[in-house]
Amino acid sequence: MRLLEDRIRKDGKIKGGDVLKVDGFLNHMIDVRFVARLGEEFARLYKDCGVNKILTIESSGIGVACLTAQFFDCPVVFAKKSKTSNMSDDVYSAEVASYTHSNVNKVTVSREYLGKGDRVLIIDDFLARGCALTGLIDIVRQSGAELVGAGIVIEKAYQDGGKKIRESGVRVESLARISSMSEEDGFVFCD
Amino acid sequence: MRLLEDRIRKDGKIKGGDVLKVDGFLNHMIDVRFVARLGEEFARLYKDCGVNKILTIESSGIGVACLTAQFFDCPVVFAKKSKTSNMSDDVYSAEVASYTHSNVNKVTVSREYLGKGDRVLIIDDFLARGCALTGLIDIVRQSGAELVGAGIVIEKAYQDGGKKIRESGVRVESLARISSMSEEDGFVFCD
Repeated sequence: MRLLEDRIRKDGKIKGGDVLKVDGFLNHMIDVRFVARLGEEFARLYKDCGVNKILTIESSGIGVACLTAQFFDCPVVFAKKSKTSNMSDDVYSAEVASYTHSNVNKVTVSREYLGKGDRVLIIDDFLARGCALTGLIDIVRQSGAELVGAGIVIEKAYQDGGKKIRESGVRVESLARISSMSEEDGFVFCD
Repeated sequence: MRLLEDRIRKDGKIKGGDVLKVDGFLNHMIDVRFVARLGEEFARLYKDCGVNKILTIESSGIGVACLTAQFFDCPVVFAKKSKTSNMSDDVYSAEVASYTHSNVNKVTVSREYLGKGDRVLIIDDFLARGCALTGLIDIVRQSGAELVGAGIVIEKAYQDGGKKIRESGVRVESLARISSMSEEDGFVFCD
């Protein structure tokens, strides 16, 4: 999506080789009007798929998921990281490693909010090694819901997460796919 | 707001006396169409205030903040809990106690995304003791931005956070104010 690639070129900051910060429009400040246009694009891509629930993971997936859900007129469920004292034990769960935070989180979704009859679109901000997405796919499978596919804002296509997940048969649509990036040469996107 | 009070009566779950779970439409599954109506109400309440930025705190404030921001056509900044390895040191910060999670978080906002010239509406899901809101107000003050007020979805008015913050001169608008609640008798809302 050209609009997004241009925005990444303009506002994306590369740190230490592999960290891409898009805090100016997605991960800390959310440019709501712009992100709603990303949501509209996900709605176009998955328009005839009967999506009736969007699944994402806290925190930075929530904004794009909510702004996307409006085009499907469906609710958002966000998977929670770590168990809180007021969460029921009646949950689906998966382990998700975070390279950004150098830790492993247990992510959970209450059984009450996902199950048979749901046609689920997973929305997330980033796809790199695929840890979060694999965990969310696992949770959809546990629930008996139908997985329609995944909508990712930015994919680091030079890492293998997207490839592996597509090879497993899951439809993955990424609005920008970075084939390489460096502080010296900036961004190269996949065709 | 009657619509919200009815929804709390229908879907709110009281646990152990003081914990109110609204996971069915706000804190785990987000009823996006419904929450957008809450956002519309915040926009009505603060319509002539020149709001050009919404500030919230991860995670559960992000959805309502984004859906509210659309009515102001402004961006959302969400304060982050704890420092991540790819966040700059150039931040405003405040300490915020969480009774739900029994811990204290350092919450931070990058100096890049908040400052003079901003007219800030703080949006959050809950107000009880006022810890999160006090921290966000502190961050707005540090930044030199103008604080327009706060929009809260649910206030536990039987706790003293809202009273203290209003007495300090901050405008606080809560869409539902609970004067008492119990598993036996359900909810009583303030007039």
